[in-house]
Amino acid sequence: MLIVKKFGGSSVANRDRVFNVARRIIEDYDQGHDVVVVLSAQGDTTDELLAKAKTYCSLPSKREMDMLLTTGEQISVSLMALALQELGYNAVSLNATQAGMYTSSSYGNARLKNITGERITEELDRKNIVIVTGFQGVNRHDDITTLGRGGSDTTAVALAAALNADKCEIYTDVEGVYTADPRVVKTAKKLQEITYDEMLELASLGAKVLHNRSVEMAKKYGVELVVRSSLTRAEGTVVKEESTVEKMLVSGVAADKNIARIAVVGIEDEPGKAFKLFRIMAKENINVDIILQSIGRNNTKDISFTVDINDAYHAKEAIEAHQEALSFESVSVDEHVAKVSLVGAGMQSNTGVASKMFEALYDAGINIKMISTSEIKISLLIDERYTDEAVNAIHEEFSLGQ
Amino acid sequence: MLIVKKFGGSSVANRDRVFNVARRIIEDYDQGHDVVVVLSAQGDTTDELLAKAKTYCSLPSKREMDMLLTTGEQISVSLMALALQELGYNAVSLNATQAGMYTSSSYGNARLKNITGERITEELDRKNIVIVTGFQGVNRHDDITTLGRGGSDTTAVALAAALNADKCEIYTDVEGVYTADPRVVKTAKKLQEITYDEMLELASLGAKVLHNRSVEMAKKYGVELVVRSSLTRAEGTVVKEESTVEKMLVSGVAADKNIARIAVVGIEDEPGKAFKLFRIMAKENINVDIILQSIGRNNTKDISFTVDINDAYHAKEAIEAHQEALSFESVSVDEHVAKVSLVGAGMQSNTGVASKMFEALYDAGINIKMISTSEIKISLLIDERYTDEAVNAIHEEFSLGQ
Repeated sequence: MLIVKKFGGSSVANRDRVFNVARRIIEDYDQGHDVVVVLSAQGDTTDELLAKAKTYCSLPSKREMDMLLTTGEQISVSLMALALQELGYNAVSLNATQAGMYTSSSYGNARLKNITGERITEELDRKNIVIVTGFQGVNRHDDITTLGRGGSDTTAVALAAALNADKCEIYTDVEGVYTADPRVVKTAKKLQEITYDEMLELASLGAKVLHNRSVEMAKKYGVELVVRSSLTRAEGTVVKEESTVEKMLVSGVAADKNIARIAVVGIEDEPGKAFKLFRIMAKENINVDIILQSIGRNNTKDISFTVDINDAYHAKEAIEAHQEALSFESVSVDEHVAKVSLVGAGMQSNTGVASKMFEALYDAGINIKMISTSEIKISLLIDERYTDEAVNAIHEEFSLGQ
Repeated sequence: MLIVKKFGGSSVANRDRVFNVARRIIEDYDQGHDVVVVLSAQGDTTDELLAKAKTYCSLPSKREMDMLLTTGEQISVSLMALALQELGYNAVSLNATQAGMYTSSSYGNARLKNITGERITEELDRKNIVIVTGFQGVNRHDDITTLGRGGSDTTAVALAAALNADKCEIYTDVEGVYTADPRVVKTAKKLQEITYDEMLELASLGAKVLHNRSVEMAKKYGVELVVRSSLTRAEGTVVKEESTVEKMLVSGVAADKNIARIAVVGIEDEPGKAFKLFRIMAKENINVDIILQSIGRNNTKDISFTVDINDAYHAKEAIEAHQEALSFESVSVDEHVAKVSLVGAGMQSNTGVASKMFEALYDAGINIKMISTSEIKISLLIDERYTDEAVNAIHEEFSLGQ
C-alpha cells in the first residue's frame, strides 16, 4: 500500500513533535507500506520569515518572497529525515524541484500543473521513506513558487493523485470534521464521513480543517482523504465522493466572522447598474459572496453584498470613485456581521430545511439580514455578536450532536 | 565590465549590514557594470543549523545536512534581493540549482565541476543585479551539495571564471592580506599585491583571509582576485599570477596553532616502515604535514610528523592498532606546538632567508623543533606558547612592516 501523510506546521513545531510524527510514520513503514510524507514549515516559521521580509522591503516582490519562504519547508523536511535516520530508518527529503512539483508561474499563489514524481518513485523503490516539502512548487523557469496559504494540503492531495496512492491522510490538530466548531458548540459531533461537496462548502464557509483547493483537487482526481489528529489515535473523518453511511440531511454548521457587508443605497433603477457595480469589484480583484437587491424609493434600488473583511474599505473606495457612472446616494460598510451556514448533501431533496433553520433563529430572537442558498447549503447573514448563539441554536434544532 | 562580488556571513549578518552591502553593489551597477553577487549565510546561521541538526540526529547523513544548511544562503540571497528592490533596483536571487553550479556527488565537501551560468547571463541581459547563493551546488542527481567551509570564496572565483568576469572582489572583515596577523604584529603591513602561490602558502599556513581551494581555482583559471573590506573603503590586496610591483623577498609570516605533533619512537630500522606508517594515515584520511625522521639508537629510528589537532588522537589510535606491523616502542602526541611560516616568491633565488629566520628565533630564545621548506616557504615547529613572539621576531627581522 502507498500512503501519503501530511502534517501541518504545529505537528512539527519542535523536536519532540517531529519525533512524535516520525514514530507514526514508522508504524506504517514497518507494516510494509510505502510512505510519502508532506510537511509544512515548523510552527510559526513562515510568519516569522514574512515579518522579517517586511523589515527589508515595504513592497517585497512575490518571486523573492517565495525564495525566502520555501526555506521553511526545506528545513522541516531535512530535520524529519534526520529524525527518522536517528530512529534507524532510511529517509530522504526532497524539495519541490527535486520532487518535480511543476506549477504555474504566478508567484505566491501558483497552481500545480504537473507532477513528474519520478524521483519519489525511485526513492520508494530503494525502500526510503520520502519526505516532500509542502506548499511549494517550481515553474517552467526553474523558479520556486508557493501555492498560497494551506498549500501543503494541496501538495499532499496532488501527490496522492499523481502517485496513485491508496490513502491520503491529512493530520491536523483536531480529530476530524465536526458538525460545528467544538470550541463553540459543546455537543458538536465528529463526522465519520463527509462528501467532497459538503467539505467544500464547509471549507469555504469558515471551517478551517482543510484547504478548499485541496478538496477540489481531491474531488477532481477521486482521492479519498482522511482528516485526523497528529496528537491522538482517534479515527478521523473520511472525505469521499458518496457517503456510504446513512445519508444525512445536514452534516454541519459553520460560521465566518471575517466578512463585511457593503450597502449601496439609492442606485438609479435602470438596466446595467448592477453589472457595472460588480465589474468594478472584479477589476479590483475583490471576491463578492452573498448579493441582495431590494427595491428602493423614487425609482431607485439598493444593492448590498458581502466581501472579505480585508477588502471592505478597498471596495467602498472603488465604488465611490465611480459615483458618476453608478449614480447612487450613499455607500456604507458594516463590519459587524457574520455568516452562519448549514451544509448537507441531503438538503437538496428536502424542502423543510430552510424554514427549520429560520425557525431556530427566530426562537433565539436573532434577526436575519441576508439569505443565500445553494443546492447543499444555506447561508444567513446575522449580527456578529450572535454568531455562537446562532450556531448552537441551529446545531440543536437539527439534533446534530446525536 | 562584469564584476563578481563576494560577501561573507558577517558582512550580511543583519538588516543594517545587508543594506550597507546593497549600497556598495549599487555603486558598481550605477556606473553601468553588470554585477553578480555571491553571499554566505547570515552571521552564525550555518553554525546554528549545525547545532540544531545535532539535537535531531547523532550521526546526521551528509545529504540531509546539505539540504538543511543550504537554506541559510537561500535566505540571505532573497533578503539581499529585497533590500535592493527597496532601494529601487532590479535584483533576482538564484540558488545553486537555478544558477547551474554543478558539483561532484560528495555531500558536505563537493567539488565544482561545471557551471552553466545561462540563467545568470539571461538575468544580467535583463539588467538585473544577480545574487547567487555561495557555498552550495547541485549534483547530477539534482541533490543539493555544499562545498565545505569557506566554499563561498570558491563559488565566487568559479563564477568569475565561468562568466569571464573582469573583476572578482572578495569582501571580508579585514582590509586585505597582511605581512602578518595585525592582531599579533602591531607593525604588520597590508600588501598591495601577492601571487597565487604565496597566497596559497599563506592560506594553508593559517592565514584565514581566503579559502585555499578558491585560490587554487583562481590560479588555474587566471582569475585576478581583490581581497578587501566590506566595512571600509580602503584599497585591498590584489592576488594575481605575477606581482607587478617590486618583487619582494618575503611577503608575510603566518602561524597555525591547530596542529599536533605525533612522535613514533623506536621503529625498527628496516625498509618499508615509513611507507607502512603513512599508508595507515592515508587510509584513515588523515593529512600529514611536516615529517621528520631521525636516527634512533640500537638499530631503530624515530619518525615524527604533524597533523591537524582534531586528527591527533585518531592518528595515535590507528598507529597503536598496527603495533605489530610497525614494531615501534612508543607513540606520543604533543598538542602544544605551533607552526610558524615565512612565505615569499622571492626566496627561491635567495639563500640567506632560512638562516636569517633561524637567527631571529635564536635571538628571541625560541627553540626550533622541526623544519620544513618548499620553494617559496619555510615552516618551523615551535612551542605553542611562543607563537606570537616568534611571528613578531621574524616580522621584525625581515623588516616587513616598512
